[in-house]
Amino acid sequence: MTLWGGRFSEPTDADLRALNDSIGFDQRMYKEDIQGSMAWAGALAEAGVISGDDAEQIIDGLEQVRAEFDAGTFEFKAGDEDIHTAVERRLTELIGAIGGRLHTGRSRNDQVATDVRLWTMNALTELKDALLMLITELVSKAEAHRDTLMPGYTHMQPAQPITVEKWLDSYANMAARDVERLNQAYTNAREAMPLGSGALAGTPFPINRLHLIEQLDFGNYNANSLDAVSDRDFVADALYAMSMIGVHLSRLGEDLILFSNPAFGFVTLDDRYSTGSSLMPQKRNPDPMELARGKAGRLIGNLTGLLTTLKGLPSGYNKDLQEDKEPLFDSFDTLMKLLPVVTAVIKTLKLNPDKMRAALDPDMLATDLADYLVKKGMPFREAHHVAGRAVKLAAEQGIKLPELSLDALRGLSDLFDADVAAVFDFEESVRRRKI
Amino acid sequence: MTLWGGRFSEPTDADLRALNDSIGFDQRMYKEDIQGSMAWAGALAEAGVISGDDAEQIIDGLEQVRAEFDAGTFEFKAGDEDIHTAVERRLTELIGAIGGRLHTGRSRNDQVATDVRLWTMNALTELKDALLMLITELVSKAEAHRDTLMPGYTHMQPAQPITVEKWLDSYANMAARDVERLNQAYTNAREAMPLGSGALAGTPFPINRLHLIEQLDFGNYNANSLDAVSDRDFVADALYAMSMIGVHLSRLGEDLILFSNPAFGFVTLDDRYSTGSSLMPQKRNPDPMELARGKAGRLIGNLTGLLTTLKGLPSGYNKDLQEDKEPLFDSFDTLMKLLPVVTAVIKTLKLNPDKMRAALDPDMLATDLADYLVKKGMPFREAHHVAGRAVKLAAEQGIKLPELSLDALRGLSDLFDADVAAVFDFEESVRRRKI
Amino acid sequence: MTLWGGRFSEPTDADLRALNDSIGFDQRMYKEDIQGSMAWAGALAEAGVISGDDAEQIIDGLEQVRAEFDAGTFEFKAGDEDIHTAVERRLTELIGAIGGRLHTGRSRNDQVATDVRLWTMNALTELKDALLMLITELVSKAEAHRDTLMPGYTHMQPAQPITVEKWLDSYANMAARDVERLNQAYTNAREAMPLGSGALAGTPFPINRLHLIEQLDFGNYNANSLDAVSDRDFVADALYAMSMIGVHLSRLGEDLILFSNPAFGFVTLDDRYSTGSSLMPQKRNPDPMELARGKAGRLIGNLTGLLTTLKGLPSGYNKDLQEDKEPLFDSFDTLMKLLPVVTAVIKTLKLNPDKMRAALDPDMLATDLADYLVKKGMPFREAHHVAGRAVKLAAEQGIKLPELSLDALRGLSDLFDADVAAVFDFEESVRRRKI
Amino acid sequence: MTLWGGRFSEPTDADLRALNDSIGFDQRMYKEDIQGSMAWAGALAEAGVISGDDAEQIIDGLEQVRAEFDAGTFEFKAGDEDIHTAVERRLTELIGAIGGRLHTGRSRNDQVATDVRLWTMNALTELKDALLMLITELVSKAEAHRDTLMPGYTHMQPAQPITVEKWLDSYANMAARDVERLNQAYTNAREAMPLGSGALAGTPFPINRLHLIEQLDFGNYNANSLDAVSDRDFVADALYAMSMIGVHLSRLGEDLILFSNPAFGFVTLDDRYSTGSSLMPQKRNPDPMELARGKAGRLIGNLTGLLTTLKGLPSGYNKDLQEDKEPLFDSFDTLMKLLPVVTAVIKTLKLNPDKMRAALDPDMLATDLADYLVKKGMPFREAHHVAGRAVKLAAEQGIKLPELSLDALRGLSDLFDADVAAVFDFEESVRRRKI
Repeated sequence: MTLWGGRFSEPTDADLRALNDSIGFDQRMYKEDIQGSMAWAGALAEAGVISGDDAEQIIDGLEQVRAEFDAGTFEFKAGDEDIHTAVERRLTELIGAIGGRLHTGRSRNDQVATDVRLWTMNALTELKDALLMLITELVSKAEAHRDTLMPGYTHMQPAQPITVEKWLDSYANMAARDVERLNQAYTNAREAMPLGSGALAGTPFPINRLHLIEQLDFGNYNANSLDAVSDRDFVADALYAMSMIGVHLSRLGEDLILFSNPAFGFVTLDDRYSTGSSLMPQKRNPDPMELARGKAGRLIGNLTGLLTTLKGLPSGYNKDLQEDKEPLFDSFDTLMKLLPVVTAVIKTLKLNPDKMRAALDPDMLATDLADYLVKKGMPFREAHHVAGRAVKLAAEQGIKLPELSLDALRGLSDLFDADVAAVFDFEESVRRRKI
Repeated sequence: MTLWGGRFSEPTDADLRALNDSIGFDQRMYKEDIQGSMAWAGALAEAGVISGDDAEQIIDGLEQVRAEFDAGTFEFKAGDEDIHTAVERRLTELIGAIGGRLHTGRSRNDQVATDVRLWTMNALTELKDALLMLITELVSKAEAHRDTLMPGYTHMQPAQPITVEKWLDSYANMAARDVERLNQAYTNAREAMPLGSGALAGTPFPINRLHLIEQLDFGNYNANSLDAVSDRDFVADALYAMSMIGVHLSRLGEDLILFSNPAFGFVTLDDRYSTGSSLMPQKRNPDPMELARGKAGRLIGNLTGLLTTLKGLPSGYNKDLQEDKEPLFDSFDTLMKLLPVVTAVIKTLKLNPDKMRAALDPDMLATDLADYLVKKGMPFREAHHVAGRAVKLAAEQGIKLPELSLDALRGLSDLFDADVAAVFDFEESVRRRKI
Repeated sequence: MTLWGGRFSEPTDADLRALNDSIGFDQRMYKEDIQGSMAWAGALAEAGVISGDDAEQIIDGLEQVRAEFDAGTFEFKAGDEDIHTAVERRLTELIGAIGGRLHTGRSRNDQVATDVRLWTMNALTELKDALLMLITELVSKAEAHRDTLMPGYTHMQPAQPITVEKWLDSYANMAARDVERLNQAYTNAREAMPLGSGALAGTPFPINRLHLIEQLDFGNYNANSLDAVSDRDFVADALYAMSMIGVHLSRLGEDLILFSNPAFGFVTLDDRYSTGSSLMPQKRNPDPMELARGKAGRLIGNLTGLLTTLKGLPSGYNKDLQEDKEPLFDSFDTLMKLLPVVTAVIKTLKLNPDKMRAALDPDMLATDLADYLVKKGMPFREAHHVAGRAVKLAAEQGIKLPELSLDALRGLSDLFDADVAAVFDFEESVRRRKI
Repeated sequence: MTLWGGRFSEPTDADLRALNDSIGFDQRMYKEDIQGSMAWAGALAEAGVISGDDAEQIIDGLEQVRAEFDAGTFEFKAGDEDIHTAVERRLTELIGAIGGRLHTGRSRNDQVATDVRLWTMNALTELKDALLMLITELVSKAEAHRDTLMPGYTHMQPAQPITVEKWLDSYANMAARDVERLNQAYTNAREAMPLGSGALAGTPFPINRLHLIEQLDFGNYNANSLDAVSDRDFVADALYAMSMIGVHLSRLGEDLILFSNPAFGFVTLDDRYSTGSSLMPQKRNPDPMELARGKAGRLIGNLTGLLTTLKGLPSGYNKDLQEDKEPLFDSFDTLMKLLPVVTAVIKTLKLNPDKMRAALDPDMLATDLADYLVKKGMPFREAHHVAGRAVKLAAEQGIKLPELSLDALRGLSDLFDADVAAVFDFEESVRRRKI
């Protein structure tokens, strides 16, 4: 039996139930639903709406319901259209009609909005921990390679030598920004407890909301009940933060896929984090990093989907808002599966400094050559052109830049001198830029 | 045991398995996987690669595997990373080493691409049937209301009277275009069988692909094996067609939500397709139509997600492509739950012609007034201005357009005559436009 | 002439130039480009890389270039592929070869990233001001209607009476969250000055970056040069914040479109903010609010587009990143055109309290009836059912809830008493919930 | 002066005008607008609504207006809010009040929908031509490299040898599917002329629509006037087809960016289609292909944006639909700039067969080794494992697969014989798979 059937002469159609019911996915919020209900029962008692005894019985009953969920013994029944119904139904089975006092002055509208916020706060915290572990591995691997040189690319063309540290740290940087975004999303979720908003108009009972926010660890409550029940900004914030994590992991994925290609050979993924081919026994595929790259699509799709759902909704709660949870859960699950694997990939990643070194082309020091001229007093723009002509000259002679004779260089500018030889040193080039 | 472990010295990490395995969702393609494998076994025998006996044993074994799936008795084992592995593993348990001959000259890359195409073709056919049933109800309800008048809106402002038939037929029209789009997606999926493409380079055995396409009901095969294994255009086509269905259902949803609001009261949703409120007993909520509106977001999100995943992928099969199936399944499931409910909503929808009639405002005949002047020879642009002034004049006098005296009208243009009274007739206005 | 031609034997193709050049849109960053260059010239001098005299000449020259832009007299030349090239080209025309010293130790990669950040910081500030003006009007209109009652909706069905204040404040609330998001995006843009990162590897000159961030009003600099040149998170942050503004404006749009429909008649848009019809002279169309609703699509599309562009990019600067600016500019321009109009719509909006009042249906007090029973000691769940039966009973008798006789009510529960009459008072219902 | 001001007492606000007016972008449809108006004038005359003389004058006048647009001498005036207003205003200036007869029985709603369809049909045709030119170059370059071998990749790991022909043809294949999608979008745009639908209710004049569709080269007209004015499916179809082109170009971009990296060195972009660096004179950047990759984001964003705008719109024309044109124009312009450049890149692309050859690793023949065993009678699954062990054995010995002694091989399976040597031949491997 649903919670609202009183007025209807015909039961809901089974197909509509299948479409409408959210129990299939919202049951994972049972902890938050029960936590919110316990706090609410306390608040009702504090306000004198129900007796202290009733509140105690309700809270004990809810404790029991939670225990059943925790133990995996909770049994769903036909009418359990959502987690709220399921919990209250079971509560009433356990403690009788008193259970029916719990929903006083509350609506599923403020209840579900509260549950989703609590769930989101927990999820963002878990995500942050997972991300911090990735950062730890990135930084630790980076530190182990402070002096390992590799080509730095722009336009995916070799540009200048950099350290492996710089490369890996750049991803730690991105992840650190993601942590910041998770924090912002967390704050946004925490700042506006909806409980006490009723269906849209508020509650007529003298509920102490300050007590409620304390108990549920909210930062504040939303004083506008109409807004409170239909505000899903915090879900969008979470989906956006997760999309950005996805974007960054997709970039890391791309780098590792490329660098583990034998043409580069810069890195080797551990056997435990590679897969083979059903047809080609020699393959060592970077599957986790391909999934890291590919799953950005899903994360962005979830964000786009929710924003589109929210677009153009009229005031107040609309059933469309039920579409908030599945993308949220899916993005969270996606990252919670992906992040530990990516972290382990980094932790177990074998770097091949020789291959990196071999990929350093002396032409990548052309900028240093220009800087040499600048230091001798030539305006940069001119120095840049001279260095360019030197690169071209070397190419015409089929040699590398450092192999150009001093005479040849002096033919381009008489600022060149014997000390130019010192320019052609990859380590030195990197050291010069470490400021 | 996976199908590819031969060369690796360490087993795959469990977290990676959880991330990588697709068996959780691709098992629903077991029918298509087995259908493709049966055809392949036959083709191998025809090409003399395996014996006719072996082929027969394989096909019989596959029949048995399918029966287990159909009966729900198939048991998954630890190494079953995807449906292909699960089926071959079980086949080999059933018929022994001969089962190991099935994968000859084939790769999971062409196999999965074939499976997904077959699944998509079936799904699009089911969707088309569901959509045709919606069209049937729309048209039948429309025909029952050929002469029922209602306000037609532009900018959501009352514009001109129309029939309910026209209103409902407009949605049948949209759905008919969607059927066309499903047909186009179906054709695109059917035109290019990947089987025989191997991992990317083709198969070295003299497989008769014309026979294969006949057996699997493909229209043609893809002659470029590299393209064949990474082409997911048909999934995008299907997701796009489903997004458009979602957009149209969202518009129908919006109309029915508005028109069932008491301010309009044009329609009443049947009890079986409405829901109540846990807090407000008098509510009759159009949940299914709100979900019809909201779920467009999810469908569009799935499309966006896949396009983003495909963006920038290098040649050949990439693991990112595994992200094709979940959005496809989700969009299909979403519509297969939604369409029957929307169809039933239309079938059981109660129209309230009186409310519609009452919402017809005589000002909506202002265009007819302008047309009247045009027929008397006034250029339209001038007639439009005169009619506008008439509306304003009536508003200033606090009366409706038809209540303006002939004198008042003649004060605006001497083309007005006694026959102007005939203009102010809603039925006539609609009839005039039925060409 | 481009800035990089030294090595190439053939000039760039004209079609590629048309594709590649960003001058068409990035010229609007001239102020930020020049501001950054001035600071850079100073930093070069401070580091002893160029002389104080040179720096002064460069800064004076840049001042002149800026004056030409401000005055609209700047003349673009054929080789001006982007704003950086155009400014340096003109600078060199004005002050000679010394101009060629400006680009020392800098790259267009760190330069453009700096420019876009500065531009974004300015844009977010302007947006915030525009949003604050909207909030001001919403709040002021809300305050003027503290006691005006209107129906509150859930599922777009009349639910409970609320005040106009609550309705309008709910949008002020949303906008306030948007301000917070703009602040977060602003902080993110400001925290990481890229200048000094060179092309990717840093700069070899002893630039004082602390001085630079002070001068350019950055909060900090990005110590990882590789990350710094390819980090466009802040653009995504800005696009996301703008998408959310779009979502909220689309909801406000929907409300005003509906409420200005004569079926509601709750609000009337001012003549100056309505439009007419070319065919139907009586129309008063809420165009600005339809655009507010529709443009959310564009804003979300811009966000999706950028995220998709960023997805899967390898390390370092890639030309793909040039796609950051047009969506950013477009979203900003969209909102800067939209926000003032929406603000003016609110300011000039005529509310029609009588129509709102007339739309209050006594059935909307059913919840109050349930609460009445709760206060008499009945568990809420039971009270909810009794109230539901009362609504149904009234409907069967063709009367409204308050018209039910006390006897009829007592037939449903003997907790009903004469004091039940006090329940049926809209003002009281609202007052009870104002906690 | 706008076309609809008759009833309003106050002029439209200037900010609203700036927001609302579409003349800034819809003027590019002047040809289609005039073409539609000419046909309409003829239809009005044929229906006896205006005289033949009037029609002639109108058509002559429109011809003149078109000539002014063609010559770039058309002068916009303050009230020209859209192209329809501008054309009619100018027409009336040229031929007097008769111009005011043109809009008889028509609305801007059916007019603009007709214009956009005509424009889209033209645009799709141009796009198709541009795409066919790309296909021509891909195929011609492919044919020139029928026997050039290169590594084929899966998971971006070397998998099996393929021909350059197969690689390039795979992109021709994708583009051919895009042509098909453009055809489908074209058909969808052409099938349903809106003209004659008026604002939403149809036209009261006996217009011969069959004549109209013939004249304007439509395939049919939309018999449902309500649907006709708000149907933008064809725009979504076009945006979707263009998104898919974008996805394919992004994949080609990725391949060329990677293969032009010196680590591969498979291809060299022509000087005319590469760019240099302002800081690094040795760089040769594949800008056009990076833009090809990056611009997929914008194309997908435009699609997402329109779908989001359409979502949830109520029946009939809504101003939101004005948001259809800018994404359509932008996607078209993007591709019309991009496609010729990509075509030229392919045409001028230098392939480096030696580098490709050098990247062929004998391990890539492991599949051939397994197939060898299959041909000797071993079940594939076993053969695959044996080949895998061979790869591993060779790796352990630090040699390549073909260098394994026959004895070593026979240690793995006694099916190996002297003829195994023939397996290790890249050309042969490719030839075997050419069926």
